[in-house]
Amino acid sequence: MPVPPFPRILLGPGPSAVAPRVLEACSRPPVGYLDPELFQALAEIQEGLRPLFGTSSELTIAMTGTGMAAMEACFANLVEPGDQVLVGVHGFFGARMVEVAARCGARVTRVDAEWGQPLDPARMEEAASALDGRVKLVACVHAETSTGVRQPLEPISALARRLDALLLVDAVTSLGGIPVDMDGCGVDACYSASQKCLGCPPGLAPVSVSSRALEAVAARRTPVQSWYHDWSLIGQYWRGEHAYHHTVPVCALMGLREALRAIHEEGLEARFDRHLAVSGRLLAGLDEMGLRPFAGEGHRLPMLCSVWIPDGVDDVAVRTRLLAEWGIEIGGGLGALKGRIWRIGLMGESATPRNVDLLLAALRRILVQRPGGRGSA
Amino acid sequence: MPVPPFPRILLGPGPSAVAPRVLEACSRPPVGYLDPELFQALAEIQEGLRPLFGTSSELTIAMTGTGMAAMEACFANLVEPGDQVLVGVHGFFGARMVEVAARCGARVTRVDAEWGQPLDPARMEEAASALDGRVKLVACVHAETSTGVRQPLEPISALARRLDALLLVDAVTSLGGIPVDMDGCGVDACYSASQKCLGCPPGLAPVSVSSRALEAVAARRTPVQSWYHDWSLIGQYWRGEHAYHHTVPVCALMGLREALRAIHEEGLEARFDRHLAVSGRLLAGLDEMGLRPFAGEGHRLPMLCSVWIPDGVDDVAVRTRLLAEWGIEIGGGLGALKGRIWRIGLMGESATPRNVDLLLAALRRILVQRPGGRGSA
Repeated sequence: MPVPPFPRILLGPGPSAVAPRVLEACSRPPVGYLDPELFQALAEIQEGLRPLFGTSSELTIAMTGTGMAAMEACFANLVEPGDQVLVGVHGFFGARMVEVAARCGARVTRVDAEWGQPLDPARMEEAASALDGRVKLVACVHAETSTGVRQPLEPISALARRLDALLLVDAVTSLGGIPVDMDGCGVDACYSASQKCLGCPPGLAPVSVSSRALEAVAARRTPVQSWYHDWSLIGQYWRGEHAYHHTVPVCALMGLREALRAIHEEGLEARFDRHLAVSGRLLAGLDEMGLRPFAGEGHRLPMLCSVWIPDGVDDVAVRTRLLAEWGIEIGGGLGALKGRIWRIGLMGESATPRNVDLLLAALRRILVQRPGGRGSA
Repeated sequence: MPVPPFPRILLGPGPSAVAPRVLEACSRPPVGYLDPELFQALAEIQEGLRPLFGTSSELTIAMTGTGMAAMEACFANLVEPGDQVLVGVHGFFGARMVEVAARCGARVTRVDAEWGQPLDPARMEEAASALDGRVKLVACVHAETSTGVRQPLEPISALARRLDALLLVDAVTSLGGIPVDMDGCGVDACYSASQKCLGCPPGLAPVSVSSRALEAVAARRTPVQSWYHDWSLIGQYWRGEHAYHHTVPVCALMGLREALRAIHEEGLEARFDRHLAVSGRLLAGLDEMGLRPFAGEGHRLPMLCSVWIPDGVDDVAVRTRLLAEWGIEIGGGLGALKGRIWRIGLMGESATPRNVDLLLAALRRILVQRPGGRGSA
């Protein structure tokens, strides 16, 4: 077996490629967690994240952990045992919200939509009106990494306002690739991850929290069940007095600062346009090969393209060949979609026309030129 | 003001210096979380950690997060609401265990020892015998980073056995610098951090869990309150089937693998000897300057030396000069010891005679040659 080609071309659901300047920034010798150089970086990270989240919220930071840590942190801070939470589920990560919220002691009402489609706000409203007592929090996933569906936030936000509930949004895959407009949409807490459209290694989770949500945290009757994820403690480290909470991952943070610099040098509009353009190029090429998109028309994410695996094609065999022969990673389906769809990520640094063309060429060799394939003799 | 010298010489409570080969390993382009290359690294990390922990436990992994995340994970997995926990507190991090355990719903009994001294097992036993019902878990800190005290584990372990309780040990600062003998001492769960004596950037938390502790987890009546830290889920990713849980920090893990290789190339005995030798060199030099150790004789950690700040000397002014003029970081005191002691770390790559000599030279310039100092004209 030949040695697999490196570096990998990461076209899966994340991690995505990391630019050399970001890797270089991550690999500088560390400084201490109370070093003035680090405080400077923390300030720059907060400044750099706010336009991405579309917010002026003060508590806009990068938590230590991956996106799932941030999801858990949001429920742990915003929910007290017995609180009612309404979760719209249109994929794997929405279902995870249900699980995580329940472990935080929430009474969870779950409203499912068909995977591949966005949520139905009317059905969510119906479910809420059947409940006894107040819904404290409405939650949904902006960019469902399991299906490639983009969830419109405005109707969910309008519902949350009518219910006088807080709104929590998972922007793990969307942040940095499509607009996230927390303040404009009335989102109270939003989290993401460093290894998707931000172009960093995995390990950090940007989070932003509205002042309304922080008031709700301050009004809690019980302590946040996670000391490690307690925003009131973490906020005291990130802002003002820099009171010690835990030893933040300084090298990763230096990398995130550099990635944010690169993002703002490119410009948000240009970055969003780039993601759209390469996504269009991919869809056109897949279409030429007869591969059909999984996510519903009009709801497709540019940075995560889900596509049906053609009948008779072996999921794992194709992905194994892509990795072994071209060093290309794409993702398989999660849950019931395992073996039925592929998930092709075009995130951050990975979102280039060159990567699209190489993947299409490789897929063509495997699928079309295979024995019995459309292009075979 | 002159530009501060880089790289920093990290002689604080952590992070410590990171070897170029480890930084290089961290900065290679990432691979996916299901990449065979990563699985190979995960296997090597587990193998490499076991001798450090002195264990053959299967669940010996590096959790995503810092040492405090691992502390919380241990309590979250091992404790159910209402369980009784006995914590020996002889410093800041023991007190944190009390806080974290309480947030996990434990009924916590806390037995304090004077900061600077080890725990008194007889007093802990007395407190336990005054309790109604079974103590599920006994917990203590092996190397108190706040005081520089080394806690003998045998008497605490004997107590835990008499109580038929699980034993949890914080080895954040000890692992890789002094022996940790989980299996020999009957420790059921032990956690550490990447940025102390292991010589990595902060962001990973090695954890090892005995089969007895895993049986207790399997026998829980309630789910682990943290989905993110649930060992039964994380274990399924690290071992065997590699079921997706969260996107592990691949770059940091590659760095940890390299650091573990370096540790085993040096050899554990040689490494422990090195920490002892540089610590002796530091203590002798401090003594020559008239600086007195804070931690009690016979209980001093080699990798973390606590020392009284001389009367009339301004803590912050000295540390600011060390950082600005020499690029040296040392730590201040925590809690009631703020402004009263310094904490000098000699951990992992930072533990070199050269660093000791430079620090002593710098302190001599600041303290002895100051106006009114012992060596002034």
